[in-house]
Amino acid sequence: METKKFDVVIVGGGIIGSSIAYYLAKENRKVAVLEANTIGGKSTSAAAGMLGAHSEYKEFKQLYPFARSSQLLYKELYEEIRELTAIDFEKRNGGLLKLAYSEEEKRELETILALSSVEWLDAELAKKMVPQLSGNIIGAAFLKEDVHITPLIACNGLSKGAQLFGAEVYEYTRVLGVKKKGIDYVIKTLQGDFFAENVVIASGVWSNYFFQQLGLSHQVIPVKGECVSVENEGFPLQYSVFHNQYYIVPRNNKEFIIGATKKWNEWSEEPSVDGIEEVIQKAKEMIPEVGNMKWKRAWAGLRPQTYDGYPFIGEHPEMKGLYFATGHQRNGILLAPITGKMIRDLMLGMPVKSEWLDAFKVERPILV
Amino acid sequence: METKKFDVVIVGGGIIGSSIAYYLAKENRKVAVLEANTIGGKSTSAAAGMLGAHSEYKEFKQLYPFARSSQLLYKELYEEIRELTAIDFEKRNGGLLKLAYSEEEKRELETILALSSVEWLDAELAKKMVPQLSGNIIGAAFLKEDVHITPLIACNGLSKGAQLFGAEVYEYTRVLGVKKKGIDYVIKTLQGDFFAENVVIASGVWSNYFFQQLGLSHQVIPVKGECVSVENEGFPLQYSVFHNQYYIVPRNNKEFIIGATKKWNEWSEEPSVDGIEEVIQKAKEMIPEVGNMKWKRAWAGLRPQTYDGYPFIGEHPEMKGLYFATGHQRNGILLAPITGKMIRDLMLGMPVKSEWLDAFKVERPILV
Amino acid sequence: METKKFDVVIVGGGIIGSSIAYYLAKENRKVAVLEANTIGGKSTSAAAGMLGAHSEYKEFKQLYPFARSSQLLYKELYEEIRELTAIDFEKRNGGLLKLAYSEEEKRELETILALSSVEWLDAELAKKMVPQLSGNIIGAAFLKEDVHITPLIACNGLSKGAQLFGAEVYEYTRVLGVKKKGIDYVIKTLQGDFFAENVVIASGVWSNYFFQQLGLSHQVIPVKGECVSVENEGFPLQYSVFHNQYYIVPRNNKEFIIGATKKWNEWSEEPSVDGIEEVIQKAKEMIPEVGNMKWKRAWAGLRPQTYDGYPFIGEHPEMKGLYFATGHQRNGILLAPITGKMIRDLMLGMPVKSEWLDAFKVERPILV
Amino acid sequence: METKKFDVVIVGGGIIGSSIAYYLAKENRKVAVLEANTIGGKSTSAAAGMLGAHSEYKEFKQLYPFARSSQLLYKELYEEIRELTAIDFEKRNGGLLKLAYSEEEKRELETILALSSVEWLDAELAKKMVPQLSGNIIGAAFLKEDVHITPLIACNGLSKGAQLFGAEVYEYTRVLGVKKKGIDYVIKTLQGDFFAENVVIASGVWSNYFFQQLGLSHQVIPVKGECVSVENEGFPLQYSVFHNQYYIVPRNNKEFIIGATKKWNEWSEEPSVDGIEEVIQKAKEMIPEVGNMKWKRAWAGLRPQTYDGYPFIGEHPEMKGLYFATGHQRNGILLAPITGKMIRDLMLGMPVKSEWLDAFKVERPILV
Repeated sequence: METKKFDVVIVGGGIIGSSIAYYLAKENRKVAVLEANTIGGKSTSAAAGMLGAHSEYKEFKQLYPFARSSQLLYKELYEEIRELTAIDFEKRNGGLLKLAYSEEEKRELETILALSSVEWLDAELAKKMVPQLSGNIIGAAFLKEDVHITPLIACNGLSKGAQLFGAEVYEYTRVLGVKKKGIDYVIKTLQGDFFAENVVIASGVWSNYFFQQLGLSHQVIPVKGECVSVENEGFPLQYSVFHNQYYIVPRNNKEFIIGATKKWNEWSEEPSVDGIEEVIQKAKEMIPEVGNMKWKRAWAGLRPQTYDGYPFIGEHPEMKGLYFATGHQRNGILLAPITGKMIRDLMLGMPVKSEWLDAFKVERPILV
Repeated sequence: METKKFDVVIVGGGIIGSSIAYYLAKENRKVAVLEANTIGGKSTSAAAGMLGAHSEYKEFKQLYPFARSSQLLYKELYEEIRELTAIDFEKRNGGLLKLAYSEEEKRELETILALSSVEWLDAELAKKMVPQLSGNIIGAAFLKEDVHITPLIACNGLSKGAQLFGAEVYEYTRVLGVKKKGIDYVIKTLQGDFFAENVVIASGVWSNYFFQQLGLSHQVIPVKGECVSVENEGFPLQYSVFHNQYYIVPRNNKEFIIGATKKWNEWSEEPSVDGIEEVIQKAKEMIPEVGNMKWKRAWAGLRPQTYDGYPFIGEHPEMKGLYFATGHQRNGILLAPITGKMIRDLMLGMPVKSEWLDAFKVERPILV
Repeated sequence: METKKFDVVIVGGGIIGSSIAYYLAKENRKVAVLEANTIGGKSTSAAAGMLGAHSEYKEFKQLYPFARSSQLLYKELYEEIRELTAIDFEKRNGGLLKLAYSEEEKRELETILALSSVEWLDAELAKKMVPQLSGNIIGAAFLKEDVHITPLIACNGLSKGAQLFGAEVYEYTRVLGVKKKGIDYVIKTLQGDFFAENVVIASGVWSNYFFQQLGLSHQVIPVKGECVSVENEGFPLQYSVFHNQYYIVPRNNKEFIIGATKKWNEWSEEPSVDGIEEVIQKAKEMIPEVGNMKWKRAWAGLRPQTYDGYPFIGEHPEMKGLYFATGHQRNGILLAPITGKMIRDLMLGMPVKSEWLDAFKVERPILV
Repeated sequence: METKKFDVVIVGGGIIGSSIAYYLAKENRKVAVLEANTIGGKSTSAAAGMLGAHSEYKEFKQLYPFARSSQLLYKELYEEIRELTAIDFEKRNGGLLKLAYSEEEKRELETILALSSVEWLDAELAKKMVPQLSGNIIGAAFLKEDVHITPLIACNGLSKGAQLFGAEVYEYTRVLGVKKKGIDYVIKTLQGDFFAENVVIASGVWSNYFFQQLGLSHQVIPVKGECVSVENEGFPLQYSVFHNQYYIVPRNNKEFIIGATKKWNEWSEEPSVDGIEEVIQKAKEMIPEVGNMKWKRAWAGLRPQTYDGYPFIGEHPEMKGLYFATGHQRNGILLAPITGKMIRDLMLGMPVKSEWLDAFKVERPILV
């Protein structure tokens, strides 16, 4: 088998790996992406695609500005990738309504509501925007910047963009191990060895294997999310609707994406009957009319969860040139652009915000 | 367009039409089956396939012996069709457990339990046969003759058998109208006219069109049934499990067919979110472990319901040679063989039980 | 069953019927759309979505300006529907390359090339735009206005737009017959009767039934088109590629739509093995790399063909208020907006170009 | 994470691993099966299911008796598993026709024809059995013992049988490495460590990883096979039809399984356009009518090929208690029972035919 030499080998072709590939290839790095299955075929394609910087992260000191930067990057990336590859991320403006069913829930929204881009809507106003909303809400925070895209298409766009800048993408190429050998890393696969000075592990929950193999006790825990989709025959929904961990995200063709359960430490990639029942019930609490809609399908994905809620984005404590980019929980889609950029900056010696470095570095202390 | 002449034209290629075609073609009648979509593609393929003669019909004076005869016919048909066409109906022995959760429900089973082929199992015995059964049952009636088959395959077998005896099957051939013309009927389709001395309307809920067009005020009401299927990872289930209108029927490849809702006068052929939730909940009441099983898929079918619960099997009151065979409710699969045989006997002047003639005749008085 | 009264009943909820519904509802007509299956679920969803006004119609005196007007209407409709319903037709700019493999084929393109919006590309230029093109071409006509959309989504957008203007859409509602009764038409369905002063038959190939039932000898012939789709892993294609009746149309998510066969008078809605082989071979002649691409799926649709190549758009010769809009061949998607507008204008007494009236009227002489 | 201790851990839950699990669990060994995806979900489910002992192996001295023994084992296993688990392998009698288009091809069949269970049919006789056969054949060898089953169902049956004898099956459990630790092997997975005295690697083409990790230079090469299926509307086919590497295998529900390409060293698990075209063309050479049949679907699977054509079934040369069972090429379904039995016999110290030991042992000399 032929051996192949690159500047950077990226292990994992989901949206995180594809974004890293894009940012590095654009800087003329010779990049290979090694994907065990198909580009974006696992957790990326299971995601709903909300870019919920405000919705998800207000409470996290470091994550909110990080997520917000990523959300802003999407605006330029969207145009850039469309120009370059003719692939359109299906970005829909509109934003997201975070529902409150009680005064207490409204109070929990206070930190978000303090932001200038977020607005409180009382029930009447909220129902003007989304007439199907439950009569039980007392109002909603309207997060107009938290728009949504179609994740697999965005991932394909980034991957194709990387390829147009020279990156090589290898599907069905499972990485068996990574070892230092001279100045290079050897990345062993069943299709032969790859060589590169830099390696990035961006394998979502499957990054665990490399933590273990590379002498780290770190872990990401799979948190299985189960989703269904249905056909909206009624009023067209322009906004995502959100309550607790559950959401309804509209897709163009009348489809509602409804999610998602959180099943800690489950590795099965298939939805269960109970998971489906759970998200149906929660969706009906938000929009009762969902019960009458046509069924489309159900699926599941595995989110890589860390113990402190922050991703691992940074270099291996001892192995120079070996990076990790995983642990993005349920926000891999949102965080992909800024993660790609940060890995690029780290690798090319460009400046990176020190608070991000610290917050996401692999060797940070984690209390389990 | 060519015109075509047959002894019998059957309108509808579901399991009822296909069975009629088989019995008539075997008697050397020149038969055409006109099917608007594909053979067995509508309600037949949506059915679970229980041959529930005891389960369904004990209370109906005329229907129980009729259904029981059909159940017995399946035994010979199964071998005959397998021999002839190499198609195996996937008949599984085992039978059916009709659950009782209370003494009252047990009492409701008394008429069935009086039969020699039916046995009462207390909870312990029932759970020996099906260890996953809910702890809430007090027992079950074991109907060992109520075995199950795979409906679409049985329909294909009957249709293929008919063809081997000379029948012609026309898919995607919608019948626009049936008219008497001389001694023949003209059956108009977009693909040209067919001529036949005898016509059988076996179009399930869509038979309404012909009732209307042929001057009858009869109707069958669509009762939509929604089903799901899941993968059983646990103990292999050899029996169907039944409570009220809900059931779990095992298929060979680890699949459980779970059904079914009853939605009166619904014409949509797609499952709704509420329908899916309903059958999930009922299945979990019978076998709680269903909640943990892998999801497979969901679908729906339309059952042709009559006002008195009896099918229409017989001749048009005024138009000689024109027959109806519809209104089999949720038991079209079970009743297909005997219906096929009865139509054959009517058409060929062979004896038919007078009580069946009376009970199923089209011109019977129906109190709405 | 309840009876329902409308200004207009449209029989058929494909893209033609949905466009008519949109234009009439916008003018405050009370509209019902009766669809036997689901909105856009038949031929509309099988179409590739090229808006090939130049590609398809240069040779037709009346059709080219008609098609070109429709193409231009799409520009405004696209924005209008997106604003109104949040549904985006997935219009992609780029246009279409009509390939020439010989000087003779180039000469056949001359009439199109005479247009100011069309440009001749020699092989080198063509391959700059689409590097994967076969080495056998001598060049291509570049029709930059012949962009493409996603048909089912456009149909959903029009249908939803109509609903927001008050139209009612009834799926799974097959029309059994249309009769004049007083000043109204009665439209009979299995779900009850509808009444309306105006009726439009927009049922594609299934319009035949109404021609026949309404005393006309007109017909549209089903020309079955078989398509496949594959995944493009290579250079992103921004243009549709076209030769003879065959084409490759890129969809966003890396998908290539490849079509289409022309099978005269075939009513089956499923693709055949031979049809699939045929379109594969033709696609490989245009872009040889297609052979290495990943398979996705295959499907078929029925195009309504008339004997003279012109659609039927106009009133029944004797029955006032009863209109036909069918026979759009392989260009129903392209012609939907102008057809909708023309029917609206006819019905509301607004001016319609006399050459279109004449060319498309139902009672024109057709030489078979 | 909990650690788990077993007598035997089997890596791979395809039909080979499931058969081994069955035979060992039946002997009261405490067995765990670790499957990276789902039971039978990879190559097993891609197979057609011919039990082609005669068809495939006549020329191999050791393989023919091995394969024939396995074929005979299926007869008892079929009954045994059906009794135990209610799962029916869908074994169809009928056998296989190996076509000859020329005298030379007939001569190549001579070794098979010498067997008492094989019969030469001239063209007329062959066409009596399969009327759709091409007019170009001069005859066929009729291998009546080479019947077929449905592979995924057989695999499920063996796996369920193993579970009923106490085996534990872990899906979505990828094995990261196997190491000796004291008297036990540690089998590392992302779900925690498993311990066992005996380990069997039965991972098809993915066994390569373990060869490599366990210090062996052995390899199995993936030979991708692409298949399609179509719907037979014509005469029911009772026999498999075979020519060169291509075949048509009938499934119960009118389906023809058509395969298969042989793509050396391809790891993609998806079918390509060229692969589909190839098998379509070859199938039409055997049964021209295939061209008119309805398309169903396409898929691909990876066969584990060894350099000498013999599987690896035996112990690691240096690591006692560690076994391999892979390299069954395109005959994993056929060879599963005898492989399961042989691994059981090796592990339990029961006698194994010395010629099989020698032919299949891992440390045999292989000339590349």
